Parts: sequence; C-alpha cells; structure tokens
Amino acid sequence: MAEGLSKTILTISVMLVLEAGRYPLASSSGLENQVFQYIDVHQNEFIKTLKEWVAVESDSIQPRLSQEVTRMVEIAGDKLRVLGATVRIVKQGSHKLPDGQSLLLPPIILAELGKDPQKPTVCFYGHVDVQPAKKEDGWKTDPYTLTEIDGNLYGRGATDNKGPVLAWIHAVETFRALKLDMPVNFKFIIEGMEEVGSFGLEELIEEEKQRFFSDVDYIVISDNLSLSKRKPALTYGTRGNICFSVEVQGGEKDLHSGSFGGIIHEPMTDLIALLGSLVDSAGRILIPGIYDDVAVLTEEEKKLYESIDFDLEEHKNISGVKKFLYDTKEEILLNLWRYPSLSIHGIEGAFHEPGIKTVIPIRVIGKFSIRQVPDMDISIGARKVIQYLEDVFSKRNSPNTLKVHMLMGAMPWVADINNPLYTAARRAIKIVSGQDPDMIRDGATIPIARTFQNITEKHVMMFPIGAADAGEHAQNEKMSRHNYIQGTKVFATFFLEIAKQHEQLQEPPT
Amino acid sequence: MAEGLSKTILTISVMLVLEAGRYPLASSSGLENQVFQYIDVHQNEFIKTLKEWVAVESDSIQPRLSQEVTRMVEIAGDKLRVLGATVRIVKQGSHKLPDGQSLLLPPIILAELGKDPQKPTVCFYGHVDVQPAKKEDGWKTDPYTLTEIDGNLYGRGATDNKGPVLAWIHAVETFRALKLDMPVNFKFIIEGMEEVGSFGLEELIEEEKQRFFSDVDYIVISDNLSLSKRKPALTYGTRGNICFSVEVQGGEKDLHSGSFGGIIHEPMTDLIALLGSLVDSAGRILIPGIYDDVAVLTEEEKKLYESIDFDLEEHKNISGVKKFLYDTKEEILLNLWRYPSLSIHGIEGAFHEPGIKTVIPIRVIGKFSIRQVPDMDISIGARKVIQYLEDVFSKRNSPNTLKVHMLMGAMPWVADINNPLYTAARRAIKIVSGQDPDMIRDGATIPIARTFQNITEKHVMMFPIGAADAGEHAQNEKMSRHNYIQGTKVFATFFLEIAKQHEQLQEPPT
Repeated sequence: MAEGLSKTILTISVMLVLEAGRYPLASSSGLENQVFQYIDVHQNEFIKTLKEWVAVESDSIQPRLSQEVTRMVEIAGDKLRVLGATVRIVKQGSHKLPDGQSLLLPPIILAELGKDPQKPTVCFYGHVDVQPAKKEDGWKTDPYTLTEIDGNLYGRGATDNKGPVLAWIHAVETFRALKLDMPVNFKFIIEGMEEVGSFGLEELIEEEKQRFFSDVDYIVISDNLSLSKRKPALTYGTRGNICFSVEVQGGEKDLHSGSFGGIIHEPMTDLIALLGSLVDSAGRILIPGIYDDVAVLTEEEKKLYESIDFDLEEHKNISGVKKFLYDTKEEILLNLWRYPSLSIHGIEGAFHEPGIKTVIPIRVIGKFSIRQVPDMDISIGARKVIQYLEDVFSKRNSPNTLKVHMLMGAMPWVADINNPLYTAARRAIKIVSGQDPDMIRDGATIPIARTFQNITEKHVMMFPIGAADAGEHAQNEKMSRHNYIQGTKVFATFFLEIAKQHEQLQEPPT
Repeated sequence: MAEGLSKTILTISVMLVLEAGRYPLASSSGLENQVFQYIDVHQNEFIKTLKEWVAVESDSIQPRLSQEVTRMVEIAGDKLRVLGATVRIVKQGSHKLPDGQSLLLPPIILAELGKDPQKPTVCFYGHVDVQPAKKEDGWKTDPYTLTEIDGNLYGRGATDNKGPVLAWIHAVETFRALKLDMPVNFKFIIEGMEEVGSFGLEELIEEEKQRFFSDVDYIVISDNLSLSKRKPALTYGTRGNICFSVEVQGGEKDLHSGSFGGIIHEPMTDLIALLGSLVDSAGRILIPGIYDDVAVLTEEEKKLYESIDFDLEEHKNISGVKKFLYDTKEEILLNLWRYPSLSIHGIEGAFHEPGIKTVIPIRVIGKFSIRQVPDMDISIGARKVIQYLEDVFSKRNSPNTLKVHMLMGAMPWVADINNPLYTAARRAIKIVSGQDPDMIRDGATIPIARTFQNITEKHVMMFPIGAADAGEHAQNEKMSRHNYIQGTKVFATFFLEIAKQHEQLQEPPT
C-alpha cells in the first residue's frame, strides 16, 4: 500500500500530523503521533525480526521441510508470549498425501491478549508457512536471507505472509511498549499450512466456535495485496481454488525414445492432450458447464467496478506482461475477481532440466488449478473436471492409466462492506496515508476468509499492507520498507478506530 | 545378446567347444578355447574395472558435470596405454549452449595398437559419457555404484556404453595377456559427448580422414542393443534424431495464478497447445510434409522384416507397456526402424516437484525430438517443424514470445550387410553362442555410424552385446554378467574371423 507517497519518513510524519488534524473523528492525534513515532524509531528492529522469520525455510509444499514449518510456528508462539499473550500451541494430526505418504501437520497457535468486556475483541489470522523458493529459480538474492535493496525487503514470505503478521504484532507491541491502554482485546490464530490448503484449521475453528471464538467480534486477515502500487485497499471478496493432478502412467520405467518412439502410446502425448483440452487461447475454460453456477453480474455491482482506480499500464508493468486478454479496466477486474480462470502449473515426472534427455517418461503428472467464484460449488466443479478429462482420455484409445485427483479445494468468499470493521479500516488508512482505500476483491484464494465467516458468523475483513508488485509465490518476493512500517501504523490506528466504531454501536440510540 | 543360453559358464564352455568343432572355418578352436578360458577366469577383474568406470558420473547432459566427463576420458586413455596402445588425447574447444553458456568440451581419444601391413586394421568407436541418473528417479540401487543382483550388473553406463567399450578392450587384453599374435591392428576412437550430439567429433574425423583413418579397413561400434533377450543381433541401420526446444516467454518473472489467472495469455497454455499440435493419439506426426522424404518400402525389404525373430509379448514385457500402437511384428519393426516418431520429453521452467505450486511460470521450454529415417533431411525437417510451430502459435494471437531451437541433429544411417565385416561378426556370434544373429536396424540414434561411413568411406558395423532389456537412458540400466563376458568372447572371436575374411579378400582369385 501507499508506495507513491512521500519518500522520507520525516516528510510522512509531518504529513500524518496534518492529515490527522483534518478529520474530526481522529481526535486522538496526540496518541497516534506517539504511536507513529515509536514505530518509526523502532523500524530497524521490526525489520530485524522479519529477517529472522524469513530465514526459516517454512515451505509447507515440500513434505521434507515440515519440521521447519513447525519450528516457524513455535517461533511465532514465542513472539506472542513476549507480547504478553496467553499462547496455546494446538497440536494437529497428520494428513495423507495423494501418493499415500503421511504428512505430520504443524501445530496451530491460538493466543489472546486482554479480556476487557468493555472492549471489542479483534482476532487476527495469519500464516507463517511459505511457497517454495530456490535461488536458481531466478532470485537475485538468497530467498531465505531478507535483503534490503533500494527500500525493498526481498525474501520469501516478506509479503506472504510473515511481514503482515509481524506488522500486526509490532502494532500491538507498540501500545504495550508505550504503556498505553490497549484499545481492543486481541486474539491471534496463526497457522503453518496455508499454502497447501490449511489442513486441520477448519476443524479447529469448528471446535473452538463456542470457546475461543465466542467473544470475538471481528476477524482480520492481512494476506493479500493492494491493487495498485500507489493506493491502499480493503478486500471484501476472494476467488476460491480447486487444484488437480492428472496422472498418466504407461508402465513402470522410463523408456528410450529411440527404442520405443513410434510404437507406444506415450504418456506425455496423452497428458499434453489432456492439459491442452482445458482452456483456449482466449483464456476460456473448455470444461462443459463450468460457468453454469457463476453469479450473474448485477448493474449495481458493475458500477462498483467503474469507480475503482486501476491503472492497466501500471499493472502490465508490474507483471511484465506485454498484453492482457482484455482491453478495459472493467473487463480485467471482472475476469480477475468474479469469473473463474484456469492455470497449468507444470508436469512432474518428465525431464525438466536444461538441455535434452531423449527419454519417454513413463509416469507423468500434470498440475493445474481453477480459481473459483461465487456461486460455484467445489464438489460439482471437481466432478465436471474429472468427467471431462476422462471423456477426453477415453477418446484417445490409450492403453495408459489415467488418474485425476483433486489436491485441494477452497471456496470463494464475499463480505458485506457496510459494517464497522470496514469503516474503521477505511478511516485508519485515511489517517495514515491521506487516501481513501479502493474497495476491491482478490483474484487469489485465501480460503480461510470464507471459512471464518461461515463457521464463526463474525465479520471478516481482508486488510492488505503489501503492494501489487510484491511478487507473492514468485521469484524476488518483497515488501517495501515503507509498506512494512506504514502498515504497522495503519494497524495501530485501526485498533483505535475499531474501538470507537464499536463504542458507537454499543451506545443506546439518542 | 544370448541371454537365453545355458546358465553356467561350465556348460557354455563345453558347448562352445562342440560349436567350434561343428564349423570347418573355425579351425582355431584350440586358440579360441584358450581365449575363452582366460576371459572366464578373469571375469571378476573385468567387472571390477566396469565398476570403477561406472563410479565416474560422466553425465554429459548437465554442463556442471563436464569435468567428470573429462576425467572419464582420461581414465579410458590410461587403460588403453596399459594395453600397450599409443594414445593421443585430442583437446577440444568449447560449445555454445542455446542459453548462451559456453561449455568446455572433453577431449577425444585416438589410440592405436599394432601396425602390421599384412593385417587388417579395425577401428573401434565408443563413448564414456552417460545420460543423467539420480537414485530418486526410481533406481533401486545407486546408479553410480555398479551392483550385481541375480546375475545383472546395474549401473548408469553399464550398457550405454562403458560396458561394451571395456568388453572390446578386455578382448584385446586377452590376446596380449596370453602373448598371442594379435589377429588385427587396432585403432580406438573414444569420446565423451555422445549423449549430447558428439560435438567436435565430426570435425576430428574430417581432419583425421587422411591420417588416423587412412589405414583403417573396418569401423565397429557397439552402442546399441539386440532385439530380443534371447538372440544376438547385428545392426545395419539406425534412425537419426532432431531435438527441439520450444520456448514461450511472457515476461520476466513467474506470476501468482490468483493475481493474474484469467487476464493474461499464460505461457504454459501456449506451450501445451504447441506441444499438443505435434503428434496425434495414433502416434502420427502432424507436421505437414514431415513424411514426404521417407524412403519407399520395397517388397524385398518388406520380406527381410518377415524373417526376423521378434516376440511382441516379450518386447511388451521388457517395456512394461500394456499395448503397442500396432498389432503385428512387421508394423512394429517398421515403425520403430524405418518410419519417424516424435516424443515429448518434458518442460523446463514449470513447476515439476511433488505437490502443487499455484504459479504461472513465465518462461517455459518444451523439449521434443523426432527420430528421423532415410531419406529425410535434417535442415529441411527442422524448417518444417519451426514453420509449423510458428503457424500454430500465430493463430493463438498470443503476445508471448516464441523461440524454437534445434538443439541437436543427427542423420539416420543404413549399411550394406554384404561385406566381410558383417560376415565375420555373424560367424563370431555363431561360434560363441551357436546362434545366427538377427540382422536388424535400431530405432535409436547413433549418429556416429553415419558420420564414419560418410566421411571415412570405410565399412561400418554396429555390433551390440547388450540385451533388449538393458534399460539404456532409463532407470536401472544394466548389463548382465553373461552378456558382458560372452560379449568379450564374441569380440575376441571376431578379431580372428575378420582376419580370416580379410585374408580371403587379399588372396588372388585362383
């Protein structure tokens, strides 16, 4: 968020005083200044902690790294204990992978700080696991050594999601360090399996609905990005995701393409045809009926899209992509947020190194995913995908074996933006940055937003602090120093604002 | 070869004596027996040497291992020196890889042993580089530790091509150790870049045509397999190979499929469509005109195929494949030997590990190859492939960048089977195994056969000792102890037989 603002902290601080003065409701400008000053002074300590967290290779995708994920969860628990929170480390069982391997799940943190019945209780959700990253994938710095270059902090997890988790913790820490009254009661739920589908979390939320969540008023998630590099945003919807593996097996061992090429049905040929049948060159998914349950776009909703500040050229520059599939802002945002998309991620079991190996790989596994939108249903969608691939395969008359697995399924989510949670966050952003945030949705999947809303029936908000060019899931993931520190201030201001909003709600009508 | 024969060395020795006695031309049965006995007695030493050679990870595909390839070439040079040969280690320059990287080439060995003008000179070609192999690819033993299990010697290079190179050297060594007169003059040309296209070798053969090769009469290559597990073979033709990389690039960095899925032309979607346009489910190559220059099958040639002993079920079992594309022996062999085939090997740059990574890979490189047959022309073929892929791509209206490279091109080869080289080898096989070899072609590519024949204008023969189930280029590559040792005997017998054949040629007609 807010990267286009004044470049030096000094300028920003001065501006913030002015901004704060402009808004009558932001009456606690002295308090805010004290908080902002503390955050500015301690920014290098906050970055040092992020560096320590980034150094843990808590990659939840690769089963061999599961111990590092557990270690990272424990480090986060220790950090919350230092903050004064009561921390419960809830052990999880194991999860059976599609290949039959059993994966020991990392524990989940449930923590709380403050129990004042006069104050609202805000629960923060975050995750400390990360996507895989290797230097040789094209990182210019070691992905597990947080490195500052030109005001940007590069490292795996800097934005997704270690940076935002720490920004929230540091915002709380600031009140504690300054011996200020906590504006709200805090709860924390921190997990380590988000990148693979949050195994065990939904069950825990169900179990804790009447306990841990019973006195929670609001749930905040900060696990996504603003839409532009210049303007902050609040997010009220996300797409879901169904991930599939398509395995074609032709025997037990790879074969020499000279000795068997031309006389066998090669598994790669089958797999390429299957993957090639999924989506056309215009990005349209070819699976029959896949668009049937997509919610109809209303005129009112369409208008909401027209008002969003979105710079196509900037987005093109961020992505490095020469041309989008659509030309207008509205088409782009609609296709990113409220229509499904299909991406093919890669193939396991085939030759993938530089050079050439003239092998016929005998067991190849394609990986693809479909970003789902309301009102698509995961199980109906999965059935359509599997049925379609089986139909395509059967027409090939191949003697090979096809296995399609749904590896992960996460529902889309939409929230009501007319509630105190969104109002308080909009005000906090305005106070710190001087800007009204864009009210946006996210094309990516944070399944937990929907899970929280469905199970706990509390208000859920997604409150990003990372900017559109953060490079989540990609090489050279980063969080700018500016966003990391300003994000901490926005969170601190939000605590004050949600307290006020909540207080107004509690007052009897005059 | 000859795996279905008697199981114990004792029985074989007895049989060989009988066999040798049966053929009047095999008059030197006493000499042969002496040679066979030496080989039997020293078999464990021969295996020990193979173990030492297999232990060198001389993988020429991965540039990082180029020093190991050079080391392996030097080890082979030392071995030939011990044999008494004069060894020249000819340094090579470097080769520019498609990615711009410069690869230092390993040297090539030119060696000679004996210069008697009364004797024919036989030049043996072999390579000591290997295909990549990793335990985790599915090897049951460490690929670089030669391991004997149930009479089979498992290890990368056991058959392709370290085993046959050593069998030939040990056959020569046997004559030397027994202080027998060498039946022929020997020359050796040993290289370390065969698996990537024998860079530099063709130029060296050109340069040495009037020197090293001037007094060579016959050239023998032992770098392929027999057709069945039971019956030895001699090979008079091979397919060529053109290898391609198809690169689609959409930007500079990988993107998150949630944040960009649905609004960009994904490089993987383009690449999958390109690869999917190459070959149909019946194995037919879809590139227009690719079959134009395939030599017409004559009735005489067709008959040759009918007489070959080829067990479809056995071949199915070797490959582990449930069903071939064709039902008859003739169709299978024709499609394997004298019609082109296309295999897709894999994709570089996409996600290839277990699990799922919901990334949009931004630069993906597909690898495929076409096994060529006479009278296809490499450069015409490559032009057709590139033109076709560019046509398919242009119809997609993708803003991504397409680059198609020919990584390697090797011509097919066919020899005249009515010359002393083939006669001598047939006789040697008959003496050692009691069987007439199948006269076969090979679907795989040993480009050097054609290169030798074209440049030196000498007779070239491919003389395999490995059996059809050797697993070249695949996991669990092996050479049976039986084939390794009997192959050594066959080579030794061949030296005696080619000397006789050559002598008959030199005699004035009576």
